[in-house]
Amino acid sequence: MTSASIHPSAVMGTGCDVHPSAVVGANVRMGDGVRIGPGVLVEGPCTIGDRCVFEAGSVVGPGDAEDGNVVIEQDARLSAGAIVRGGLVIAGGARVQAGAVVLRSVPPHAIVAGNPAQIVGYVPSFGGEGTDTPAAPGVAAHGTGAITTRVRGVTLHRLPRVLDLRGNLSVGEFGRSVPFAPKRYFLVFGVPNAEIRGEHAHRTCKQFLVCVNGSCSVVADDGRHREEFVLDDSAIALYLPPLTWGIQYKYSADAVLLVFASEFYDSAEYIRDYAEFRRLAEMQA
Amino acid sequence: MTSASIHPSAVMGTGCDVHPSAVVGANVRMGDGVRIGPGVLVEGPCTIGDRCVFEAGSVVGPGDAEDGNVVIEQDARLSAGAIVRGGLVIAGGARVQAGAVVLRSVPPHAIVAGNPAQIVGYVPSFGGEGTDTPAAPGVAAHGTGAITTRVRGVTLHRLPRVLDLRGNLSVGEFGRSVPFAPKRYFLVFGVPNAEIRGEHAHRTCKQFLVCVNGSCSVVADDGRHREEFVLDDSAIALYLPPLTWGIQYKYSADAVLLVFASEFYDSAEYIRDYAEFRRLAEMQA
Amino acid sequence: MTSASIHPSAVMGTGCDVHPSAVVGANVRMGDGVRIGPGVLVEGPCTIGDRCVFEAGSVVGPGDAEDGNVVIEQDARLSAGAIVRGGLVIAGGARVQAGAVVLRSVPPHAIVAGNPAQIVGYVPSFGGEGTDTPAAPGVAAHGTGAITTRVRGVTLHRLPRVLDLRGNLSVGEFGRSVPFAPKRYFLVFGVPNAEIRGEHAHRTCKQFLVCVNGSCSVVADDGRHREEFVLDDSAIALYLPPLTWGIQYKYSADAVLLVFASEFYDSAEYIRDYAEFRRLAEMQA
Amino acid sequence: MTSASIHPSAVMGTGCDVHPSAVVGANVRMGDGVRIGPGVLVEGPCTIGDRCVFEAGSVVGPGDAEDGNVVIEQDARLSAGAIVRGGLVIAGGARVQAGAVVLRSVPPHAIVAGNPAQIVGYVPSFGGEGTDTPAAPGVAAHGTGAITTRVRGVTLHRLPRVLDLRGNLSVGEFGRSVPFAPKRYFLVFGVPNAEIRGEHAHRTCKQFLVCVNGSCSVVADDGRHREEFVLDDSAIALYLPPLTWGIQYKYSADAVLLVFASEFYDSAEYIRDYAEFRRLAEMQA
Amino acid sequence: MTSASIHPSAVMGTGCDVHPSAVVGANVRMGDGVRIGPGVLVEGPCTIGDRCVFEAGSVVGPGDAEDGNVVIEQDARLSAGAIVRGGLVIAGGARVQAGAVVLRSVPPHAIVAGNPAQIVGYVPSFGGEGTDTPAAPGVAAHGTGAITTRVRGVTLHRLPRVLDLRGNLSVGEFGRSVPFAPKRYFLVFGVPNAEIRGEHAHRTCKQFLVCVNGSCSVVADDGRHREEFVLDDSAIALYLPPLTWGIQYKYSADAVLLVFASEFYDSAEYIRDYAEFRRLAEMQA
Amino acid sequence: MTSASIHPSAVMGTGCDVHPSAVVGANVRMGDGVRIGPGVLVEGPCTIGDRCVFEAGSVVGPGDAEDGNVVIEQDARLSAGAIVRGGLVIAGGARVQAGAVVLRSVPPHAIVAGNPAQIVGYVPSFGGEGTDTPAAPGVAAHGTGAITTRVRGVTLHRLPRVLDLRGNLSVGEFGRSVPFAPKRYFLVFGVPNAEIRGEHAHRTCKQFLVCVNGSCSVVADDGRHREEFVLDDSAIALYLPPLTWGIQYKYSADAVLLVFASEFYDSAEYIRDYAEFRRLAEMQA
Repeated sequence: MTSASIHPSAVMGTGCDVHPSAVVGANVRMGDGVRIGPGVLVEGPCTIGDRCVFEAGSVVGPGDAEDGNVVIEQDARLSAGAIVRGGLVIAGGARVQAGAVVLRSVPPHAIVAGNPAQIVGYVPSFGGEGTDTPAAPGVAAHGTGAITTRVRGVTLHRLPRVLDLRGNLSVGEFGRSVPFAPKRYFLVFGVPNAEIRGEHAHRTCKQFLVCVNGSCSVVADDGRHREEFVLDDSAIALYLPPLTWGIQYKYSADAVLLVFASEFYDSAEYIRDYAEFRRLAEMQA
Repeated sequence: MTSASIHPSAVMGTGCDVHPSAVVGANVRMGDGVRIGPGVLVEGPCTIGDRCVFEAGSVVGPGDAEDGNVVIEQDARLSAGAIVRGGLVIAGGARVQAGAVVLRSVPPHAIVAGNPAQIVGYVPSFGGEGTDTPAAPGVAAHGTGAITTRVRGVTLHRLPRVLDLRGNLSVGEFGRSVPFAPKRYFLVFGVPNAEIRGEHAHRTCKQFLVCVNGSCSVVADDGRHREEFVLDDSAIALYLPPLTWGIQYKYSADAVLLVFASEFYDSAEYIRDYAEFRRLAEMQA
Repeated sequence: MTSASIHPSAVMGTGCDVHPSAVVGANVRMGDGVRIGPGVLVEGPCTIGDRCVFEAGSVVGPGDAEDGNVVIEQDARLSAGAIVRGGLVIAGGARVQAGAVVLRSVPPHAIVAGNPAQIVGYVPSFGGEGTDTPAAPGVAAHGTGAITTRVRGVTLHRLPRVLDLRGNLSVGEFGRSVPFAPKRYFLVFGVPNAEIRGEHAHRTCKQFLVCVNGSCSVVADDGRHREEFVLDDSAIALYLPPLTWGIQYKYSADAVLLVFASEFYDSAEYIRDYAEFRRLAEMQA
Repeated sequence: MTSASIHPSAVMGTGCDVHPSAVVGANVRMGDGVRIGPGVLVEGPCTIGDRCVFEAGSVVGPGDAEDGNVVIEQDARLSAGAIVRGGLVIAGGARVQAGAVVLRSVPPHAIVAGNPAQIVGYVPSFGGEGTDTPAAPGVAAHGTGAITTRVRGVTLHRLPRVLDLRGNLSVGEFGRSVPFAPKRYFLVFGVPNAEIRGEHAHRTCKQFLVCVNGSCSVVADDGRHREEFVLDDSAIALYLPPLTWGIQYKYSADAVLLVFASEFYDSAEYIRDYAEFRRLAEMQA
Repeated sequence: MTSASIHPSAVMGTGCDVHPSAVVGANVRMGDGVRIGPGVLVEGPCTIGDRCVFEAGSVVGPGDAEDGNVVIEQDARLSAGAIVRGGLVIAGGARVQAGAVVLRSVPPHAIVAGNPAQIVGYVPSFGGEGTDTPAAPGVAAHGTGAITTRVRGVTLHRLPRVLDLRGNLSVGEFGRSVPFAPKRYFLVFGVPNAEIRGEHAHRTCKQFLVCVNGSCSVVADDGRHREEFVLDDSAIALYLPPLTWGIQYKYSADAVLLVFASEFYDSAEYIRDYAEFRRLAEMQA
Repeated sequence: MTSASIHPSAVMGTGCDVHPSAVVGANVRMGDGVRIGPGVLVEGPCTIGDRCVFEAGSVVGPGDAEDGNVVIEQDARLSAGAIVRGGLVIAGGARVQAGAVVLRSVPPHAIVAGNPAQIVGYVPSFGGEGTDTPAAPGVAAHGTGAITTRVRGVTLHRLPRVLDLRGNLSVGEFGRSVPFAPKRYFLVFGVPNAEIRGEHAHRTCKQFLVCVNGSCSVVADDGRHREEFVLDDSAIALYLPPLTWGIQYKYSADAVLLVFASEFYDSAEYIRDYAEFRRLAEMQA
């Protein structure tokens, strides 16, 4: 076996490294610096971004033509034996763990595992395995008040709480312990455990999140740094300034997330494309 | 047996009606128009207000002297076989149901039943059995928006709600669907089922109540009319204007009540005495 | 205290025995052989049948006039401390246990207990405490097939059953293991634990009852003998011939009762009055 | 009404105090210093020990003769409205709370409440409401090791415990953290919540009790002092020396109590009569 | 890499398409028109029917000789990365989803997914993803009565139902709302969620299925059309005429399926081979 | 395709059999008699023991260099499509089932399956699928007493048990039904289902294991024979003599394992290396 089986219609960027035992099918288009390991199978139509890595035995298999194009964005990585069905997008920086069988698209920087694959974390902005930083305990040590995080402008708040045999109380005061006066609130509930919500940023709207029942996790991302916060106590709140990319997931079955927003709803105010968010965040920084 | 056994130290008002088989002990002080039924036992020290009714076989038994004085306020009624221990207050207009064994003081207009007795409702301002008016369905028929109630200024609101397989949303906008801009919010949770909360009115503060998980009941009282509202849906809210006596109870084990208040906390702003509330409410009406 | 306090308007039959400490109020009408124990309070309007027994401290307290007449039918018994509100019927042969607070009418031969009182059994046709005869185990010993009971024509059936790791099966064959060909079936489900169903007999319709989920109890009564059967296994069935008074109760929360009937529904075919049933059953016997 | 209705066959000791409205029936035999409150009904056959107290409206109602003799032992107290059926023993020092309906015999010093009455605590050896002393927290503050209690020779032990995400460990060493080398162990499980176990002392056997799952309560009594211990943690143990009267109750549904005994089983070694225990304990003290 | 690695002992039909990177081992016998994708590994002994498809990276790996022959019947499809152990049958028309690990045989037209693979649906008779057609809501709109389905002779029935606070009732009348008079009934219960039941047709017997507790799904197939019905309401029933292939699966833990059959049990009356069923169904059509 | 792709730096023992389609990467070091099936991918650094088997399509993919060396010990087997991440040890004799995705190291003789892979059994000392021998029923037939097993010196004990409506009792006597006098006991609880505990032998300490709540499985291994025991009844105990390799797993959520040990804790007394254990066990045999 002296050379990889690469279909004549495949297009490769510069600096790509394809193992001789790999198979690259028709209509595969690669960016620069892609690494294709031993035994990897990539069927087209498929678009692969710069610097993607496919470890040994990973399979991108659209199967039937009707499943459509696969898009693997820049810096994504498929670990050993990972399988991606047709018609999906593996967004920039995402990681598909060993043996994961991906049946739904994967958002930017997410880490997925299992069969079927589910999101188990987010790639942090620095080295390490994921975003599971239990930030709340740090707050606990400070009594009430806010502490800063590694994500620009994001603060974690501990609100006053009164525990009592006759029932408990947790209190927030707008303009005092809550850093703005809200124009609206909304409640999110009944979210299936596998669902991911948010995945957008706001241009001008500020948010203040309190998980008032059960628990969920919030990932906040300023375009440079990303951090995950576990909200499992109604006396802990997370403040997200404008131009923060936010994701909520790992909802417990009984989770109720209360969100205060500084503005009325305005769809034009949402940034739903991660690349656009990155550009805007860079300009602000 | 030709006459009731009434202790010489007992003091009776005018128009009282004591059944001959009853026993009225030392240090009992009755108001006017009290009715004491057959077989009733009232031991002192006990103070009984005007127009109270003791049905057959009811017992007011302070027992040991250290249990202290019993106070049965005006218009209270003890039904057949009810038992009241020493040291308690049965407040004005309360009803102790047949066979109830009362071990804790009973608030104004409350209806208690069982052994031990628990609050099961509130005497409504008009005829009928209790306050269990399921007001919410009436709102349901109106989509979103507010409807008035029998209690002065109190309105019931249905907020927009989006149900979705990926999770549900309920939204309130301050100054729009919520009739004021809040200065604070508080969460009430972990309330034992038997607990009663509230039992006060505010001089100037407005409140907006949403049960965001589980369910509870709210009694609103303007001094003339009283109505009970079941909050069991995070898209239903109750607005309480100033000078409304409010009570929350029947909390489910998982209930989380979210309250928006138009003012910061100020203890001077609370009216905790029902009689004082009645006077102020009368002046305003 | 030398004599009982009996109101002049009360009417007593022959052979009544009223304890001197008891109070019998206005508009009480007693049959023959009634026994009224110490401390008993009976207010009118109340009609008491022959041979009723009121044990020490029991109270029949209509209270407010609007509650209306109490009827205690023949052979009923109120045990020590029992309380009966106005407007109710304690039917013939019923027993109100010690301390029970009766807020609903009590059907014939029922035994009620608790606060509020609930039906806990039925007075059997012979001596003993109740009807709780676990008849099913007797059947269990016989494999499949039918066994007779003490109630005329009523048979208990064990149907074939196959238990298997892949799921279980229970089978009935009409005209073979089921003693008739059904014209209809019905399912009873979602019955609150405190509910009593049935309380009627059929003139011509045969019934075959199988509790296919959860459990319930069936009381069968031929006018002379009465027996209670626990149905808690879908391989056990109860056959009720025409002219059998049937009651179902003690439904578990998840009970589903499957009933096969030999006739289509015909309301004229139901006997809902126990006295009429007794007459018809006597004629047939 | 000028005097109590006392049956000629009743026998009363010296210093008894019977309220004029009470009824004391045939075959009631009272000790000295008994207090019978207003409206009390005591039917015979009934034996009442010294210093018993019957509060207002309580009823001792054997009802039918076949229910048999009631025995109320010395220092027992029936609170207002309590009802005791025939054939039972209310043992020395027991308390029947207001409104309780007693259907089973009550052991020494027990406090019963409810309808039907259940044991809710034990009268402590000093003043106060009951035995619910949460002794364990006191131990918690001491790390591992033993602390003494108010009951002679009884010690409470905190055993080493290692908590770990991979599973937890709790360890006891015989002759070191466990004060003796056991000859046997036994496990108690599947105890219904209403059951009371133990109610005996040992002549020579030492015991070491650990609740290894769920929770239960242990009452230890040296004849002078009595204390209740909640065992709800497998790292907490209770040592009972010989001649300690022990009771276990309030078993949670999943409770498993592990007991080490210093001797093999020997029925002659058990003291099951409380009065005998008191004598032996006095001799030792 | 210029040619596939095909063992000399492998036998291939006409029109097969084997990717050069695939490996076909000894003792593999293929029908006509089989497609073998890139990187596919097929070890023998293995028999593959006409028109089967193996997507990229799928593996048929008997492993040890003792695991025995693999049979992939005509029109079956293995999606990307699917794995099939030795000794199994993947029946005609079945689909193994991407990454599924098949450890048990797969019945005709079933869709399996996951690790280990479980049945998640059935391939419908027309294009589309599966059989998950929630047919019941269609019925709901029609009140009671029957509606036809796409499967020959199969009808879906809504039976009368009475909902009541005191318990609910659902009724069927034989020869009226139920289209035949039954000779027997059977109950299926305690079926593990992963189990598939039925998988046979009857020559002459009619069936009427009601899920009286919990829920299950029924697939009905007339040899040409196949449809899946969710039974989750005891007022919905499914009628299956003779010569209908029926499958029940997706049983909830508490499911109880009641089946009425028009004939007594006769094993000769069952058709358990799907190919034979297809032949008989074709003859009748 | 005429030869396997074997990296020049790979080292192979004698008698290895590598399929031409397999890929063996840099820094792979194989022992003797290793079998590498079709399409297998083994990336280095990786050390493979004698007689290991890699079935079709299995992948050993360290991926990033930082994941580190993979060690597959002698006699281990990877079934079709199995995936092993970098940095792990698959210990001697272990089996990775088809399609399993191994993310944690696998202990000696363990069988793992699923994604992520979990231990589902242990390879027995003789032929067969695993160790799931429900040994306890054999004991049940013998009443109380001990029976020998296939593992040297290991005995299974049935202890006396008394079942009673008021609670159950199970008893062990040290030196009698328990074969030694313990110096300590420990309780293991709160073990996650996926955890494996034990995996060591003792030089001199004897152990006696009783699962007093819930259930767990114990594998006992004398170096020649291995057997698995289900402990799910507090009247069943397992005695392990010194020099027995013991593993506990399959803990139910509520499992509490009580272990008596004949010696105080001494870390020098533990043998934690399986190979060393084998040597010592051989010397003793």
